[in-house]
Amino acid sequence: MALLDEIKAPGDVKKLSEKELPGLVDEVRSRIVDVTLKNGGHLASSLGAVELIVALLRVFDPRYDRVVFDVGHQAYAWKILTGRNARFETLRTEGGVSGFPKMSESPYDHFGVGHSSTSLSAALGYAVARDLRGEKHHVVAVIGDGALINGEAFEALNHAGSLDNPVIFVLNDNAMSISPRVGGMALHLAKLSTSALYKGTKNVVKSFCRKAFRTDRVYRRLERMKNAVKKTLSRGNLFSDMGLTYWGPFDGHDEQELERVFALAKNYDGPLLIHVLTEKGKGYAPAEENPVAYHGVAAAEKVPASSASWSRAAAACIEDLAEKDPRVTVLTPAMTEGCALNRCRAVFPRRFFDVGIAEEHMLTFAAGQAAGGLRPIACIYSTFLQRAMDQLVHDICLQRLPVILAVDRAGLVGEDGETHQGLFDMNWASAIPNLNVWAPYDGRSLKNAFESAARCEGPSLIRYPRGTAVERLTPADVFETADFAFVNRKSSWCVAAAGSACQIARQAAELIDERGGEAPDLLYLSRVSPLPEEALARLDGKKLLVTVEEAYERGGLGERLALTCEQRGMECRVRAVALPSVFVASGTPAQQRKRLGLTPERIVEIYERQMR
Amino acid sequence: MALLDEIKAPGDVKKLSEKELPGLVDEVRSRIVDVTLKNGGHLASSLGAVELIVALLRVFDPRYDRVVFDVGHQAYAWKILTGRNARFETLRTEGGVSGFPKMSESPYDHFGVGHSSTSLSAALGYAVARDLRGEKHHVVAVIGDGALINGEAFEALNHAGSLDNPVIFVLNDNAMSISPRVGGMALHLAKLSTSALYKGTKNVVKSFCRKAFRTDRVYRRLERMKNAVKKTLSRGNLFSDMGLTYWGPFDGHDEQELERVFALAKNYDGPLLIHVLTEKGKGYAPAEENPVAYHGVAAAEKVPASSASWSRAAAACIEDLAEKDPRVTVLTPAMTEGCALNRCRAVFPRRFFDVGIAEEHMLTFAAGQAAGGLRPIACIYSTFLQRAMDQLVHDICLQRLPVILAVDRAGLVGEDGETHQGLFDMNWASAIPNLNVWAPYDGRSLKNAFESAARCEGPSLIRYPRGTAVERLTPADVFETADFAFVNRKSSWCVAAAGSACQIARQAAELIDERGGEAPDLLYLSRVSPLPEEALARLDGKKLLVTVEEAYERGGLGERLALTCEQRGMECRVRAVALPSVFVASGTPAQQRKRLGLTPERIVEIYERQMR
Repeated sequence: MALLDEIKAPGDVKKLSEKELPGLVDEVRSRIVDVTLKNGGHLASSLGAVELIVALLRVFDPRYDRVVFDVGHQAYAWKILTGRNARFETLRTEGGVSGFPKMSESPYDHFGVGHSSTSLSAALGYAVARDLRGEKHHVVAVIGDGALINGEAFEALNHAGSLDNPVIFVLNDNAMSISPRVGGMALHLAKLSTSALYKGTKNVVKSFCRKAFRTDRVYRRLERMKNAVKKTLSRGNLFSDMGLTYWGPFDGHDEQELERVFALAKNYDGPLLIHVLTEKGKGYAPAEENPVAYHGVAAAEKVPASSASWSRAAAACIEDLAEKDPRVTVLTPAMTEGCALNRCRAVFPRRFFDVGIAEEHMLTFAAGQAAGGLRPIACIYSTFLQRAMDQLVHDICLQRLPVILAVDRAGLVGEDGETHQGLFDMNWASAIPNLNVWAPYDGRSLKNAFESAARCEGPSLIRYPRGTAVERLTPADVFETADFAFVNRKSSWCVAAAGSACQIARQAAELIDERGGEAPDLLYLSRVSPLPEEALARLDGKKLLVTVEEAYERGGLGERLALTCEQRGMECRVRAVALPSVFVASGTPAQQRKRLGLTPERIVEIYERQMR
Repeated sequence: MALLDEIKAPGDVKKLSEKELPGLVDEVRSRIVDVTLKNGGHLASSLGAVELIVALLRVFDPRYDRVVFDVGHQAYAWKILTGRNARFETLRTEGGVSGFPKMSESPYDHFGVGHSSTSLSAALGYAVARDLRGEKHHVVAVIGDGALINGEAFEALNHAGSLDNPVIFVLNDNAMSISPRVGGMALHLAKLSTSALYKGTKNVVKSFCRKAFRTDRVYRRLERMKNAVKKTLSRGNLFSDMGLTYWGPFDGHDEQELERVFALAKNYDGPLLIHVLTEKGKGYAPAEENPVAYHGVAAAEKVPASSASWSRAAAACIEDLAEKDPRVTVLTPAMTEGCALNRCRAVFPRRFFDVGIAEEHMLTFAAGQAAGGLRPIACIYSTFLQRAMDQLVHDICLQRLPVILAVDRAGLVGEDGETHQGLFDMNWASAIPNLNVWAPYDGRSLKNAFESAARCEGPSLIRYPRGTAVERLTPADVFETADFAFVNRKSSWCVAAAGSACQIARQAAELIDERGGEAPDLLYLSRVSPLPEEALARLDGKKLLVTVEEAYERGGLGERLALTCEQRGMECRVRAVALPSVFVASGTPAQQRKRLGLTPERIVEIYERQMR
């Protein structure tokens, strides 16, 4: 890593000679591959953007210019080259380098990200701020083609097209989102990319660049170049229709060409979109061959057998329902692999819809299907469901349409950090009328939840966490319905837990047993909204109720049970074990639970203070 | 209303002769104007779509075909002509005809709506359901040009462009959303609309229609027509770029032409967009001249002096902040008039941004501005903030950016009904870390909230209701901070209320006083998250705490205070007065409060049961 060792600050990339750059690019790629295979992370996208990022750092100055990455899957080279190479080994670990750009981590991460399609809006905000404040720097957003189809990106394109503020949107087009991309936009980009005009454009740009670069006649030449490109290319171009200037496509692995284009872009006075073609996984043969599998790689030692994961268990329930009922359809916004739906897609191709990164559309599309007589199941990560809360309320729940939301990665998600935690879904969803909300606690209750939901005439939401599902949490002789289980030890106190937090309750009971204390009754809640009346009856006469949930305390189960007990005139004290009101940074889920007090020991502590 | 009286069922429109149709159109317009001026409602859009709706009803059969209206502002003629003319006088009243399409109201309202830009997704869902189930009917969505720029509509266009399912999108282009429309798309539509090609297209269609209509050679002729139109028009067309077939533009007030076009569209095998030009307010001179003012009209007897409204009071606070601090910008998603920001736009044109119906973009755009050193204030209705919860979490709160959300129409909104209630914002927002949430209770506390928020380094949300703001709720000698007020009567019990619900608390205290009971202490909360510690201290030693809030009980203030009291070891009983978990249909806010038990009498009842 001879070259990389010399890059201490972002400006150092500019000090290298042209001849050294291919070497630098190779070193950055090796570094990304080494660390990502060890720690897990977004490998393929980051490999595809190395030349692009080197070129950005050679043309722009991140001390003043603002570069906003979309999603952040592609930004590892940026981290390595802006002073974080030495710490890069701590990627995605507790206290380590975040897997995504993060403003509090570095002055060179200009906008925090993790979710898709925010970069154009944020960059436009930066550009407006610059111009109102009379500053002079450049603003760049780097967005992938998968992210471009999300509605928010379109809203920003539309707005940019009517503003005069100079801003540079770099479209990093690798013809993939997480899975192969979806929709009319994809076809349009493919047409632009494979067009015979590409070669011609390239030459036009090259010759103009040679003449115009760093001369005082840049503007006039640019204008002429624009017209030359326009004549051959911009007919039928979606971006120019929207009022943006379109340049491209360019070879995203030709670092020198990118430098020339970016240098010209610095002098362009208006919103500009530069279309760059890259290859996902570039430079690492296994990822080039299978970019979907290498989109995100898990840390080497932590890969669970996929058959045991909650995702896989839920997918099996969904396949069962689809098998039994021809009205069942399955929808996902680019999460086919993440939600373990590959088999589902293969078995039910006509009833499977990957809509791309389009969460809002997916929910209303599901609502329309349900209104039309189908029984859609929409699979989405908890954190991305935040993108479609209004559609959940307005299109699905208000109309009582029989849509099932299968909400994966609910609760603490571990290494992906703050942006990806699934900590709002349960509390927000429980506030919505007409919606049945389940948080199953084991494989059996998961299956029960899907079967109950499939029988509902209205909407349901089933949340389950990342990681491994236990097949059965409850002892064989326990009272159990589809909505809850009750481990009755005739105790004077009770722990009520929801979903994956039921394991914490069980462990607390075991600890107290071991220490010879009075172990609590255990109420495992699978249905959390509306709360099952029969389950609440079990709390009668208890002296103490401790609630446990993998969600924020605010608006959560503990608060709800506290008021419920009050209003029913029950005398029991209530204490909640839930998350404090903070965003939760990277770490393993176990580290995160410990950090935030979501542990069996915390329950034992409350027991000891209250009951002894 | 001779013709209208004959229309009992949707099929009756088909029975009229061509010659009778202009008369019918006039009668429908009169009916809309009469009722809307009396009851309030969306006048201008509905006037613009009368011929369009008559043509739809003459070509399609709503017993089988599915017609999804976007937003629903334009659908009054549909209601009148599908069996609801007699009841139309009850528009927007309690128990009356809803101001928006509503599935539970009529079998001819095929999808419920109220928020923008869902129709294409829903229609696509219907089309997929039809094709999977082997049904044969047609599916139509009618969307306005303002709604088209919202991201969700774009996501649906993108998806439709890659599916084969026949679906007809009618773009009802009146060159307006609520305010004049925004962005690159607007320019593109304007270019398509004013193009010299329009006349030509029209003739091409007319001549083909004459030949092709109701013959068995429809398909081949259609293909030829498509090519003819394509040659002259579809170059540079955004919709064809996305993979849809584009026909248009057509004169949306030429009912006969629309019938011909729709008849051809029935036979088109794929996703089709028909571009129709209409005039907002058509046929009613005051609305034609000022379509913005006549977008929504208030019921005649209920117009509050705008200077006294919460919206106007908040706008005055915003103007003050903008006056004092050049970093302050003001953003709104097509709510300039609704949020009373006209003056603000006039005084600070460079710092004012109406982004169109693009809530997601607006929040991230604000985040980018804040990251760039500005102090944006984003003004939005509570119900539409549901569209951008993820951006609030991910772009603003996670990064602690100094953005102020000014959330108008929070709480019960009255006649707009289920889709427009502002009942989630406070509970959802209170669950978000780093966010200060205010619910001011009078004009002074509103001003305090804005001033406190402006001093915050992090994000704030200030919610206020529809209607008239009292200047001052508290007696002169009361203890009051920027976060809360406490009316200390040394009572053994307390009513704690948030925001506009503080008036209910005060009225309850007055009632109890009048009846000679023990009137409660009153805690008026302006800051509801985090709860002001100093306010909580006032609850010590009380026997009973009653909470009041204009929001759902689930996830709300009552639950939070119940747990807070528990965990602080306070002995007081807690009872909550809040909304049950139901969607709230039309009525005046007073009727809605009464219906749902959000009344002073309810507090008195609790007092009498608990304290006597």
